[in-house]
Formats: sequence, C-alpha cells, structure tokens
Amino acid sequence: MTFTASVVGGSGFTGGELLRLLDGHPEFEIVQATSRSETNRTVGHSHPNLRHLDLRFSHPEDLAGVDVLFAATPHGVSMEQIDRFREAAGTVVDLSADFRLDRETQYEEWYDGHSRPELLQEAVYALPELTRDELPGAGIIASGGCNATATILGLLPLFEGEVLAGDEQIVVDVKVGSSEGGAGGGEASAHPERSGVVRPYAPTGHRHEAEIEQLLDIEVSFTVHAVGMIRGATATCHVFPGEPVSKADLWGAYRGSYADEPFVEIVSGGGGVYRYPEPKAVAGTNRAEVGFELDPGNGRLVAFSAIDNMMKGSAGQAVHAANIALGIEETAGLEFRGLHPVGAP
Amino acid sequence: MTFTASVVGGSGFTGGELLRLLDGHPEFEIVQATSRSETNRTVGHSHPNLRHLDLRFSHPEDLAGVDVLFAATPHGVSMEQIDRFREAAGTVVDLSADFRLDRETQYEEWYDGHSRPELLQEAVYALPELTRDELPGAGIIASGGCNATATILGLLPLFEGEVLAGDEQIVVDVKVGSSEGGAGGGEASAHPERSGVVRPYAPTGHRHEAEIEQLLDIEVSFTVHAVGMIRGATATCHVFPGEPVSKADLWGAYRGSYADEPFVEIVSGGGGVYRYPEPKAVAGTNRAEVGFELDPGNGRLVAFSAIDNMMKGSAGQAVHAANIALGIEETAGLEFRGLHPVGAP
Amino acid sequence: MTFTASVVGGSGFTGGELLRLLDGHPEFEIVQATSRSETNRTVGHSHPNLRHLDLRFSHPEDLAGVDVLFAATPHGVSMEQIDRFREAAGTVVDLSADFRLDRETQYEEWYDGHSRPELLQEAVYALPELTRDELPGAGIIASGGCNATATILGLLPLFEGEVLAGDEQIVVDVKVGSSEGGAGGGEASAHPERSGVVRPYAPTGHRHEAEIEQLLDIEVSFTVHAVGMIRGATATCHVFPGEPVSKADLWGAYRGSYADEPFVEIVSGGGGVYRYPEPKAVAGTNRAEVGFELDPGNGRLVAFSAIDNMMKGSAGQAVHAANIALGIEETAGLEFRGLHPVGAP
Amino acid sequence: MTFTASVVGGSGFTGGELLRLLDGHPEFEIVQATSRSETNRTVGHSHPNLRHLDLRFSHPEDLAGVDVLFAATPHGVSMEQIDRFREAAGTVVDLSADFRLDRETQYEEWYDGHSRPELLQEAVYALPELTRDELPGAGIIASGGCNATATILGLLPLFEGEVLAGDEQIVVDVKVGSSEGGAGGGEASAHPERSGVVRPYAPTGHRHEAEIEQLLDIEVSFTVHAVGMIRGATATCHVFPGEPVSKADLWGAYRGSYADEPFVEIVSGGGGVYRYPEPKAVAGTNRAEVGFELDPGNGRLVAFSAIDNMMKGSAGQAVHAANIALGIEETAGLEFRGLHPVGAP
Repeated sequence: MTFTASVVGGSGFTGGELLRLLDGHPEFEIVQATSRSETNRTVGHSHPNLRHLDLRFSHPEDLAGVDVLFAATPHGVSMEQIDRFREAAGTVVDLSADFRLDRETQYEEWYDGHSRPELLQEAVYALPELTRDELPGAGIIASGGCNATATILGLLPLFEGEVLAGDEQIVVDVKVGSSEGGAGGGEASAHPERSGVVRPYAPTGHRHEAEIEQLLDIEVSFTVHAVGMIRGATATCHVFPGEPVSKADLWGAYRGSYADEPFVEIVSGGGGVYRYPEPKAVAGTNRAEVGFELDPGNGRLVAFSAIDNMMKGSAGQAVHAANIALGIEETAGLEFRGLHPVGAP
Repeated sequence: MTFTASVVGGSGFTGGELLRLLDGHPEFEIVQATSRSETNRTVGHSHPNLRHLDLRFSHPEDLAGVDVLFAATPHGVSMEQIDRFREAAGTVVDLSADFRLDRETQYEEWYDGHSRPELLQEAVYALPELTRDELPGAGIIASGGCNATATILGLLPLFEGEVLAGDEQIVVDVKVGSSEGGAGGGEASAHPERSGVVRPYAPTGHRHEAEIEQLLDIEVSFTVHAVGMIRGATATCHVFPGEPVSKADLWGAYRGSYADEPFVEIVSGGGGVYRYPEPKAVAGTNRAEVGFELDPGNGRLVAFSAIDNMMKGSAGQAVHAANIALGIEETAGLEFRGLHPVGAP
Repeated sequence: MTFTASVVGGSGFTGGELLRLLDGHPEFEIVQATSRSETNRTVGHSHPNLRHLDLRFSHPEDLAGVDVLFAATPHGVSMEQIDRFREAAGTVVDLSADFRLDRETQYEEWYDGHSRPELLQEAVYALPELTRDELPGAGIIASGGCNATATILGLLPLFEGEVLAGDEQIVVDVKVGSSEGGAGGGEASAHPERSGVVRPYAPTGHRHEAEIEQLLDIEVSFTVHAVGMIRGATATCHVFPGEPVSKADLWGAYRGSYADEPFVEIVSGGGGVYRYPEPKAVAGTNRAEVGFELDPGNGRLVAFSAIDNMMKGSAGQAVHAANIALGIEETAGLEFRGLHPVGAP
Repeated sequence: MTFTASVVGGSGFTGGELLRLLDGHPEFEIVQATSRSETNRTVGHSHPNLRHLDLRFSHPEDLAGVDVLFAATPHGVSMEQIDRFREAAGTVVDLSADFRLDRETQYEEWYDGHSRPELLQEAVYALPELTRDELPGAGIIASGGCNATATILGLLPLFEGEVLAGDEQIVVDVKVGSSEGGAGGGEASAHPERSGVVRPYAPTGHRHEAEIEQLLDIEVSFTVHAVGMIRGATATCHVFPGEPVSKADLWGAYRGSYADEPFVEIVSGGGGVYRYPEPKAVAGTNRAEVGFELDPGNGRLVAFSAIDNMMKGSAGQAVHAANIALGIEETAGLEFRGLHPVGAP
C-alpha cells in the first residue's frame, strides 16, 4: 500500500530533506511540494540532489488532498494554517515548534503566544524512543526539535533506568552546525563569518529548553554553541547524581532504553578513532549515537549524544513518526548508515 | 540470485566504502574482509558507519572462495597476489592501478615496472560509460582511477561527438579532497597542515595522465591540486577546438554521450546556487556531473566534471563494473542521490 | 612625518583590512572611516579585531580633508564620487575596478561603461612589482585586482625574462576564497552552501581578464573557481613556450624579476610540507609566493602564484602603493609574516 | 637593550610560534633553535612563515648560552634536562606541564610522577593576569596550559570579585582546535578523520583540571571537545552562585579584574556578529576575550572565555611572561590584533 504525501515549505533545507526521504521511501508517493518564493520552479532548482524529480513547487495556497502533509514552515505558520492542513490531509506532521508544547502558558513564556491553544493537547510530540505508543493514528504530530532530541536521547536512560531522580543539577552544552540557521541566513551566516567558529549563539534561554523540561519533567541549564560543521547537533550533558553510579549501572540503563531501538547506538569508550558519539558519524542518517563517561572525583556523569539535526533532529524524525503513525515498517526509507570518511557535512 | 563477495584491504577508506556498498546491495553477500593491520578486529572498529556489521577482518593470507573479490590494496599488491585472487574468485575487481594500463612499457614509464605483464591485455579497464561492452564476463577488472575518471567523463563527449579531433591542446586542472591520500596520511595530511589548502600536490606528471591518454588516445597537460574538502575530484578541462563550436554543438555532444547513462548528469549554466558541476553535489553518490562553457574570445571551451573520488572514482565504479560483469541491474546498490545541504564531505 | 588618511566604505571586509593596516602603520593616522549603513556605529561593531579603536563611522557625505583617501567601495561608486574624493585628498587610492583600465572601450566591453573616461589615463595602476616607477606623486591610484595580481605575479618573470614572447597559449585556472564575495553575501555565500565547494563561479569571462591582458599585453584564457577557504587567491598558469625551457632558465627569470622585491618569494619544489605556493602560507600578509614546474612531455610550463586576496590582492597592495606614492618605506605597516599552522583563514 | 634567546624544540608548532614572536620582538635576538629530527635543516623548512630567517636547527645536545631559554618540548623532557637548561640560561621558560604543579603528589596523581620535585616550589606559574607579581626575576617559569588558561581567565573575576565563594558547582566545557594535538598527529589527526568533528577527546580527567584547581583553589568538572578549527581554545563555564547575581555585579567583577589588563577584553552581549567571546576573533593574537550571561531561571551564570591556544595558551603567554620577568614592556612583540574576516585558523 502506498500513501500520498505533500511537503509544505519544500524549498528550505528541511523541506528538501523531507522530499529526499519521501522520494526514496517505498510506501510514500510525493504528490506536491509547495514554496511561496519558488513557485513553479523545479524542486531540483533548490536542491541539486533532487534534480531527477519531475516536480515543480506549487503555491502554498493550492494544497492538494493527501494522506500525510509534512509542514516544514517557520514557527507561527502551522498554527495559522492548521485548519487548511487538516482539511488537506488526515495526518499532519509539523516540523516547527508550533505544536510541541502542551500548554498555552509555555508559548507565552518561550514564544509569542499561541493562536490555537485548544489543539495543543491533541497534538502528539514525536520522539519515537519516548512517545512511540502515542503516535499510531495521531492527527497532528509535532516532530521533536533538533537540540531537544539530542539532549533527551542522551538523558532519557538516566531517568528510565532510575540513575537520576529528576531533581539533580543538569548542565547541557550543545554544539550545532550551520544548517540549523536554515536556507536564508543573514550576515552572521555568511561563509567568511560563520566558518570555523565556536560561537555562543544561545548562551542561555534557548527555546528547546522548554521541550526538554516538558518531556523529561526536569530542569536543565541549557547553552547552545554554533561550531564548524553544517549538519549535526551534539549534546554534552553534565549530570551530578545523588549517589555514586558505576559503569555497569550506566550500561544497564542505556541498554535498557535502547537495546531494541533501531536508530540509537551506544558508543562509549571503545577503540579506534570514533570512541564517543560524534555528529560526523551520523551525518545524513536518522541514527543517534549516545555514550557516557564517569568522573568520580567530581561526582559527575557526562552523557554524550550526537544526531544529524536535519535527520533525527527534523526530517528523519518526522518520517519515522509518520511510519509509526501509519503502521509502516519503522525504518522504511531511513536505512542510510552514513559515510566514512566524511568531512563537515 | 545472490553473489558472494570479499574485500581485500578492508580497513582502508576505499575498502570501507566497498563494504558499505556491498552491505546495502541486494545481490551481494559479504563473506570476508581482510586487513593485515586490523586482523580479528571488527569492521566497525575502522569504519563507524559499519558498526552494525557482524564481521571481523581476516588475515589477507586466508582468502575465502567467493564469486567476486574486490582488491582495495596499495599499488603493487595486486600484481603480486593476482594468482591467489583468481584462485579465490572467478571475478577479480582491482581498485589499484596495477591492471589499468595496457602495456608493460607504460608501467616502466609511469610506475616501477610490472611483474605480470602477460595479464595486462586480459584485464578490462572499468569506466562503464566508455568500456561497458567489455565488462560482461571479464575475469580481471581494473577499476578506473579517480582523477582519470573525472577527466575522461568531462572530455569523452567532445570526442564521441566529434567536437575535437584529438590533436588539440588540452589542459586539465584537477582539484581533489583529502581522502585521496588514504587512511594513513603523513605530516602533510595532518589536519592543521591540510586544512584549507590549495596545494599543487602533483604539479606535473601525475600517473593518471597515462590512463587518460590511453583511454582517449590523446595528449593532456595534467595538474592536480589538493583543496579543502574530504571527498571529491573535479576536473576543469581547458580545450582549444580547431574550429568554432556552438552551445548547441556541445549540448548535442554531451546529450549524445550521456542521455541514457544512469550515473552522469549534465549541469551547465542553469539557475540557482548549483549551476555547474560541483563535487559537493555528488558527495556520497556514484553520480558524475559534467558541464561546459564557451569562451569565444579565446577560442576556448571549458568542460567541468565532478565526482566523489571514493565512489564514482573508486568503490562505486568498482561495484558498477561488477554489476555489469555479472549481469546485475547496473544501478543496484548505487542509488543514493546525496545530501543537501552538505559541507565538505 | 605622519600622513592623515581616511577610508571610504569602512564597514566592508576590504575597508576593515585597510583600517587594520593603517592603525598599525607608523606613518599614517586614521582621521575618518565612512559607512552608509553603519553610520555612527563604532568600527569595532563591524570588525572585532578593531574594537580597541576609538572611532565611529561617518556618513559618506561628510568627507574630512586628508592626505590620502582610500576608497573601498563597490564598482561604480568611485567614478561617480571621484571629484569629491579628490577635493578631500591629494592622493586617492581606489580599490575598486573603476580606474584600472586605460580606455573607455574596455569599460564598455567588460563593465557597463565609464562616466569619467577622461581620467583613465591619469590614473596609475598599482601593482608595484610592475608599475612602481609610476606611483610617486600619483593623484589617482587604482589598486590592482586580486585575481589579476595573482596571475600577473605568476607570469611576469616569463615576459621580463623573455621566456615567452607573448603570443603563446596561456590558460590561467584561479582558485579563490569566500572573502572575495564581500561582507554582504547572498544565498550562495551562506555557510551551508559555500562550505567545502569547488565551484566554477566564473567559468569564462571574468573581468580581471581585462586587467591581465592590459598589463602584460597578452591574451589569457581565464577561469575562476571558488574553493574552501576564506582568504586567498591562487593562480595556476599553464603555459606553452615556443621553445624548450630549462629549470635554470626559470630560476633565472624569476630571480631576475623578484630577487629584490620585498613581498615576493620564490617557492618551487623544496622539501617539507610547503613545496609550492599556497595561499595558506601567505594568509594575513602582503606576501606573494610564486613557483613553477616543467612538464617537458607536454611542452608545458606551470607557474603557480598565491596571495591573500584581502592583502596583496587589495588592502595590502593599496597601502604598499600609498607608501611608494608618498615616499614612505615600502614595507611600512606590512611586515606581518603570517602564522603556522593556520587553517582556512 | 637586547636579550639573547633560544628555543629548544623549535620544529614543533609551539616552537615555531615562539620563533615567530621572538623574530618580531624588539628586545629579543634569536641565537639558537634546536630540533632533534630536523637538525641542520633551515627553520623555514618546518615553518613556511619563517623562510626569511637565516637560521638552521641545532642538535639539542649543543645548547648555546643565552639570556632566556624557551623549552617547547613534550612533557617529561624539561624535568630531565632542567640542569642543562639552567646552565645555558639565567631564565628558563618551560611551555610543557613539567613545572606547573606545586607538589610531587599532583604529578603522581595526574602524570607519571616527577624526577625533580625539589624544583616545583621554585618554579613560577605564568598566567600574568594572576601571577604577574611573582614573575620578575624568576629562574624557572612554567607557562600556563592552554585549556587551563582559557578556563582560569573566564572564572578569575568571579573569585576576585567575590561573586563566588569557591565551593560552588562549576562545569567547564572546553572546545579546542587541532593544533593542540601538535605537529606529529596520528590516525585521529589525519584531515579526513579530524575535519568537522565535535569529538569528546577528554570526556573527563583532562590534566589541565589540576592546574585550574591549583590556581583558583576550587573543584571543577572539566570536559574537552575537539572541534572544527586549527587554533583556538574556548571555555564555557557553567556556574551556580549561592546567591542571585546581577549583570551589574558581573560587569563590576570583570572590569575589576581586567580593566587594566592589556590582553583581556570583555565581550558580552553587544551588537553585530561577534557578541560573545570567539576563538576566531583572537586567532593569531595574545588576546583573550571573556564574557558572561545570566540564566536566572536556573540560578546559573555562564562565563565564556576564548584564546588562541598557540598564543595566549602557549607561545604568546611564554613571551609575555618573559617580558615581565626581564622588565621589558609587557606587550612588546605581542601587538598583533588579528584578522577579519578569518576562517578556521
């Protein structure tokens, strides 16, 4: 059986990644891609890896009826357009932050409020390792944010495995690539200014902090740096457990959470060049790498987590969620394992 | 039907790329990977994208019997081991330069001679766009060199389309990524020294010049620069036709050669960011992009050609050749279309 | 004695580089920097390396009287403003292309015409290694273009040393960094799109071809690629002398031209990692490296030349020219020799 | 007055940087540079920016008598050679870790013990912003480590300004460039493997933790990542003060510590592209940038600090210390303010 799909906001980076995944997916057929700025241009004009597609961007006012609509639009668009999206499709997968939080007050605190708060409880947050059971049959799916996903995957086993109680001091220091800034980019995104930086772009108060705290029911101190890569988000979680923890405890916790997960791999202190999670090692894939190290002298535990922000952090996670929602094999269309060697993709 | 395959020299970059492709190939089953230095270690120890494989490197002395043996060994090894390779496999695909040239005298001129010259005529040079017909049933396949492949693909239509006669002045200025140096690397390959270079690493006399001249029966002036990327080889071919050429002539020639080729795309002066061939746009794929521009004021024609040196320039081309040799669908296992955006992969 | 100086267009990359050099120059005092978009902001707001300067941008309408005015404005501005510039300063050093060519017809062919053609003969083209004698006392100095400077420095000894007659086939393949695109930058300059490219950005017909042909009185086939670095322009000149040339001839020619030049170094085939000219090795400096290699089999000679496009290719060359014009020590303010190791600066 | 100087270990990255600084220093004359592996080769063979120096490496057994000897040798060499060094020079500036810690027990805990523990108390740790007063006349100067220097400079005002008492939870997350690995480099340092990484290279237990704890008399939880740049070390210090802190408190503390420091600049939340400390902005200079941000919701304070690990983190700091020790102007030879734009230097 094949499902029809459309991508709203198809000329941006995330929209292109969705189109790439849907094109290679055995169960989806792309019916439409929209772009306001690129209407009538070919998809390949925006995305050189999609020149083989015989598809031109439609105007976003002309939505085709499909089984699944993926919205890769800036924050604020989906909440305004949600009725049109739902009219067009039985399943709406939103990749923006518009339906990720549960309560209107959170949007007032972290964003600029919300115009459709009555839908927030209906929407299902998609981070399948945590919310898999809620996804089948969901009508509005809010695909988890990139930095939140990296962080949650790094910390989740510590709570599921009861290594932490939830009231511990947790510092999360995130490093991200330039694709998080999207296809537009201003002066700070220009190559001469952005190349080779370690730039504190969200020293405090990054909005994904709200997602993490909601999903894990904890407090985190969250800081995001832009570093010298294009794809990738990696979270270094500095955690101070109340009681001493052993390596065996950690292996038990991480294996307990992830042994059966198709997209999470534990990489923790083996040999060779790649001994801990690295965004390079997952670039282009829907995989997450997680790992950990103990610092007994400081009563600290460090958890590392690396994803491709364009994949497990957005388009890949959205397709993964749609697979589950529609009863498709979870890994369908998401099998690519990545390249070696690979530079700063 | 499934063919069994082995990779000799599996811990190097090219060996890893072969294993990645064979792992995802519907018609191949990996039976063995060898590595002298990594014997008994897992394949994932060398290649983080292959950690899911339940496979350890064998010692190269212990060759299993297979349908196809891929040799990803340094120059000189295959000519010494060819009898053992052929004993182990009915089809040997050699990725080194050992069987690419036709005559012993060429090896004396460009390399250090050849120990098995009687086999040179038997071996088939694999650059399917040019030598497809010779591949079915071949016993020794010499997969074309990366820089030679980029250059030949850029120039081929000019000869097939009779734009050039073969005696014109041809300058080929090639730019390559750091993966061409292989997994070892010396002082010049260390990140602080290699990062961001434009380095004339073969100002003149690069050995691939011999392949180009043999395959196209021409003379070329060939120069290779190392530039700031990991994967990629791009050839800029400056050509001076004897008579004026039109854009229509060129489109005719390139379409004539490549319209039906599954892995070659003509990219020549369209809109958007990616208007001519770029190695970024083909990174991780077996695709080649070719394009051209006229310079009437100088009586010049510039042809551009971009490939991923690890794929169309080595492992991808080898698998493509094996597909043809064994009667498998040509594109099997080579469908990946690449990522956008992507950095310096 | 100290000269007063101003920089028109001070918030761009080249303007910032001029301010940096003038700030560290023993004989210049910065009186004014103008910027239309950044008026009243500090210089350090645009240029983090200049935060120590107690200087705010003036509006470009309010020009102070100075000894030397450096114009770092886009093409077309200087020809419109030249009367105001000359009213403000006895010496105008223009870093745009507005006064580089000799004849109105050249501007009609390569640009969009010229509004003050009567001044073209008066302006002196500044590439001191070639035009040093014309600079003392000049009123309008047109600082040589970056890609033209790299190319001319690579080829000059071949003509001065009579290795070439001037009617030979010459192909120049240039590779440049992203700073050539300036501080604005559009979609193609955004980090995710620009990072790691080898992009034919001027396949044919780059405007600097006109400068080269004028200065050397030759024809060149000129192609420019954007590659993975920020600063740097390197020219690979493929030349076919009419008669055989020896290494000794070349050393003689290059030493003849450059032995006494303070900013040109011959780097040609020595040992170590840096054996030929490389833009990394001159980044941040006013130095040029030139070198060469013979390809007897093809009757070819390859000349390499590397500069920092922001320095020897623009701001450094402008200060060098001003030094000469005003009778200051040539190397004053330009002594920085560069860093090692250094990445892709 | 001019002081004579030598560099032991001159062919490595740090040795080259010392030679560059001493060459441009008005008060030092380079008498000797030693290198075991490059004996008799020119200094320019190792360092392309020093080709103008008429100097060949001596064998390290043949030490000339000088005023100051700079030792840029691997850990363990200086403690073995210290008597010879002191015989050769009245002032020994050691850039290794051999004399940085105060007590033998620290070397037993963090290193492999110490062969000359009786000298530890005599040696002066050089981080002039903290230990300036101890430097004049010192015989053994232990130049502070790169990651320790970045961290200490970020945290110091919090203690000097009594924002912190010393028993608070402090997490330091450091990001460093590839030059920290030195000129040798193994497989993990090869360009294809090292390019574009965010690699946890010292997840816990980095030796510089000992320096920080000794100098500031605190406990820190310390983690170091390798990221995509060549030069640079930046520390993100996550701190949890016991009582609420205001921005005014922080400005007061940082200004109190650094207002008169020639090499430290407070960069904290201004406009433009460069709003917080960034290693790019100090590359090639002896400057440190420090800044901070409050996170009231988490009771957290984040302090940022960025240096060039080759300069303020080693060679620049060593020269700065020597300037103070010998009564030279502090900033002599260290005036370079850096480039803009600049890539990943």
